[in-house]
Amino acid sequence: MSLLVTGSIGIDTVTTPFGTSENCLGGSAVYFSMAASYFCPVRFSGVIGADCPFDLADTFKGRDVDLSGLEIRQNSKTFRWKGSYHNKMNEAVTDNVELNVLAEKPAKVPVEFTDSKFVFLANTSPALQMELLSQIDNPTFVAADTMNCWIDGHFDSLKKLMGKVNALIINEDEARSIAKESNLIVTAEKILEMGPDVIVIKKGEHGSLMCTKAGDIFVLPAYIAKEVKDPTGAGDSFAGAFMGYLTKQGQVNTENLKKAIAYGTVMASFTISDFSLAGLAAADTKAIESKLEKLREVTQF
Amino acid sequence: MSLLVTGSIGIDTVTTPFGTSENCLGGSAVYFSMAASYFCPVRFSGVIGADCPFDLADTFKGRDVDLSGLEIRQNSKTFRWKGSYHNKMNEAVTDNVELNVLAEKPAKVPVEFTDSKFVFLANTSPALQMELLSQIDNPTFVAADTMNCWIDGHFDSLKKLMGKVNALIINEDEARSIAKESNLIVTAEKILEMGPDVIVIKKGEHGSLMCTKAGDIFVLPAYIAKEVKDPTGAGDSFAGAFMGYLTKQGQVNTENLKKAIAYGTVMASFTISDFSLAGLAAADTKAIESKLEKLREVTQF
Repeated sequence: MSLLVTGSIGIDTVTTPFGTSENCLGGSAVYFSMAASYFCPVRFSGVIGADCPFDLADTFKGRDVDLSGLEIRQNSKTFRWKGSYHNKMNEAVTDNVELNVLAEKPAKVPVEFTDSKFVFLANTSPALQMELLSQIDNPTFVAADTMNCWIDGHFDSLKKLMGKVNALIINEDEARSIAKESNLIVTAEKILEMGPDVIVIKKGEHGSLMCTKAGDIFVLPAYIAKEVKDPTGAGDSFAGAFMGYLTKQGQVNTENLKKAIAYGTVMASFTISDFSLAGLAAADTKAIESKLEKLREVTQF
Repeated sequence: MSLLVTGSIGIDTVTTPFGTSENCLGGSAVYFSMAASYFCPVRFSGVIGADCPFDLADTFKGRDVDLSGLEIRQNSKTFRWKGSYHNKMNEAVTDNVELNVLAEKPAKVPVEFTDSKFVFLANTSPALQMELLSQIDNPTFVAADTMNCWIDGHFDSLKKLMGKVNALIINEDEARSIAKESNLIVTAEKILEMGPDVIVIKKGEHGSLMCTKAGDIFVLPAYIAKEVKDPTGAGDSFAGAFMGYLTKQGQVNTENLKKAIAYGTVMASFTISDFSLAGLAAADTKAIESKLEKLREVTQF
């Protein structure tokens, strides 16, 4: 099984109490693919401008990440994000954003990717997500992310998308905005009624919650982290490991979904341990399995 | 083994999005004792004024709660608290407080309670908590709660108390205030350095975290609750079940501590399901064990 991701590649400048990382590699598709690559082959789809200083082939060297879907637009500029984290580091403050290529038409999914069975549509406008999805022949399991600007401004379009995807993987605040509800279990149930079979709500330092139409509920705390250097990309790393594990297993059932959440939790913990992709890229199977065991030890009674 | 609690009895008026409960029974010792009574005999110590409209003997009828330590001061008035909950219901807003008897000297612990082995000192000034503790001969396991006004205004006194107790059971914000640290694991470690062997940090809807000097870490989400009618007393119910379970087991070890946290989580969920003590008092062994199993099911992978 292989996993397709469509999402952003970004030039990030991030400030946290641990320092500033200027013009570093970021973007949802990048974090997602790096995390997923520990579990399964990844097909990457995204757009950069001619100004992009990063060699993604080098970034993913030695990993089974197929960059055929990386489009370089000579007359465009790469997406840039400048953000900072304060106090409890649970939420990013966006200091500046330049959409650049993200404001243009999305990447065309290469024809050799159209038979992908597991698909992740990273955050972009729901209309674009639908357009991307329509290029895939017959996917088995499609998950999508979204954010508040689409929930507030394009809700009808988002509702259509929700009717087409198997899973939504979003933040706590986004989930509450969609459901217009404060209780998180009720929020999850309301979102399930809008279409998806699985809703995963990411709560940052408080972990995550998953509910399914089949009636499964799963709640897991975040990995115990003594040092959070940079939370950027934690959510996309979570989603990457979640989808990567499911793709590897090839089957979406209660047990696999729970374990996918656990792996998502673990991979996010690598990401937050350092700036940009440094923590995530330094992981290996032994360290991943060891953290999974530790996660089990500190949560099971 | 029996468990002694010293704490408040209150006349509460609570407003939540579900309504207002006027002049209902509350107070830390009351919630604590009710929750603990499902696990072990409880010895109750606290003070009320002549105005108290509640018959505590009736409240605890059929339960092994020894009210010999209940002092009624004819010339005093009972503690009153008026509070409300908004939005996410994770934090109470205190609208009015009348300390009344709580501003006077504490209850005298009856001589027949002085051989108590498990002791919980509910929130009051650390100096009073020390005075109460000094009346107990040779306790095995003492836990205490505190709150921000003591952390901010009586920190030296609180530090002395922390050197005398085995466990501190406090809220997330209180823990961060004590440790002057935002990361919760580091917060816990810093508090352990101040004295207690066990630190339990309650995070409301996000569950709880326990760390021990022996190196145990345990993180558990809150019980999945679709309806939170009134969070008042959840923390004291948690502490009551936590201490009640440990008292019942008679031994404080890793396994018992983890299970005590799980039972604390379950009993808090009964409390928040209704106003005042209605939800907690309606629990029974079958419902408690069933919720414990459900908690295991939704958290284990």
